Amino acid sequence: MIRLYGFWRSLAAYRVRVALHIKGLTFEEETIDLGADAQLASAFRTVNPQAAIPALIIDGAPPLTQSVAIIEYLDEIHADPPLMPRSSVGRARVRSLALMFAADGHPLITPRVTRYLAQAFGADEASRDLWSRHWLRQSLEQAQIRLAGDAATGAFCHGGALTLADICLASQVLGARGFGVELADLPEVRRISDACFDLNAFRLAHPLTVRDAAR
Amino acid sequence: MIRLYGFWRSLAAYRVRVALHIKGLTFEEETIDLGADAQLASAFRTVNPQAAIPALIIDGAPPLTQSVAIIEYLDEIHADPPLMPRSSVGRARVRSLALMFAADGHPLITPRVTRYLAQAFGADEASRDLWSRHWLRQSLEQAQIRLAGDAATGAFCHGGALTLADICLASQVLGARGFGVELADLPEVRRISDACFDLNAFRLAHPLTVRDAAR
Repeated sequence: MIRLYGFWRSLAAYRVRVALHIKGLTFEEETIDLGADAQLASAFRTVNPQAAIPALIIDGAPPLTQSVAIIEYLDEIHADPPLMPRSSVGRARVRSLALMFAADGHPLITPRVTRYLAQAFGADEASRDLWSRHWLRQSLEQAQIRLAGDAATGAFCHGGALTLADICLASQVLGARGFGVELADLPEVRRISDACFDLNAFRLAHPLTVRDAAR
Repeated sequence: MIRLYGFWRSLAAYRVRVALHIKGLTFEEETIDLGADAQLASAFRTVNPQAAIPALIIDGAPPLTQSVAIIEYLDEIHADPPLMPRSSVGRARVRSLALMFAADGHPLITPRVTRYLAQAFGADEASRDLWSRHWLRQSLEQAQIRLAGDAATGAFCHGGALTLADICLASQVLGARGFGVELADLPEVRRISDACFDLNAFRLAHPLTVRDAAR
């Protein structure tokens, strides 16, 4: 039995949902309502002391945390279809692209951060949204330059097969769309993320498919 | 020939320096002065279009970027001593701990972010330092709880052998010390980071060993 602790709006939970669907794994999702600070409740802190989602429990084993670590784990134990290239050089490139989103881009716009902006600098909702748009746009601009300038880019971020990098790119594009970030001038970003969104796994993982999603 | 593009004060460059020393690899370090925005110069953007350090070039191959991706690569091609556990469960735990620092904790305090705080919210130096202390402290508090509450913790973050997780923990502690963050009540964090700092590789990688370090 696989249980995902997630939230419909969480881009990191989305990444794990996509990977689970790609691997054809059946799972239950338990909502940790970030809007109501459920991640800070003691019930969830026993699952993840970091008080962050996603967390994934497989057959009662200790919870796995951090979306990229979870996806690498799923890829190691369910090799087909692979989400990482075979060569070490390829894996390094895929991990670097993935972390450009999952480490440098996404954490900056999470609720813990935007809430702290309000608390520390009195940032109102409009300026918090500007903040989020700034970092979403920056990471996707950088992605455009990296992807367009590299012969290793193919139908997807790394050659012709879907990898961890594409999952992270798609999550960032999803966030950018949610904040109305302009993507028209980022053709590689749009081309590759559109190729992802056409896949069934990405459709099945979409935030609005999640039970308890606000509509 | 191995060339690291780094900066003495960069915690991410420090992580790569530590790994290079652990693997016994000789390298040259080229200073990309973040204080003078050298990472934004076109000369460096040809190395890393993301305009971020570290970047690592090995024998003229395409640059490797993102500290965690670089360290995983070094570990794959130079297996001894290993920086990752053998089991997939162990690797998932090590990657999760590493990303708690390298993804959730560290990016928030990088110059691009603190500079934007000044620009967007008029944050002065004192409030930018408070910001950095807040996130450094938060990630180390979370680490304390995770490490203290888990039987998989040993002399180091994961059992008795040094891993990627320890390198990331040590970098965060180094940052916390630089900002005067209180660590007295985080005994696991102090115990394990002290064990790291006792090792020769961490001594050799220390920011103040880097040419061009401000003293």
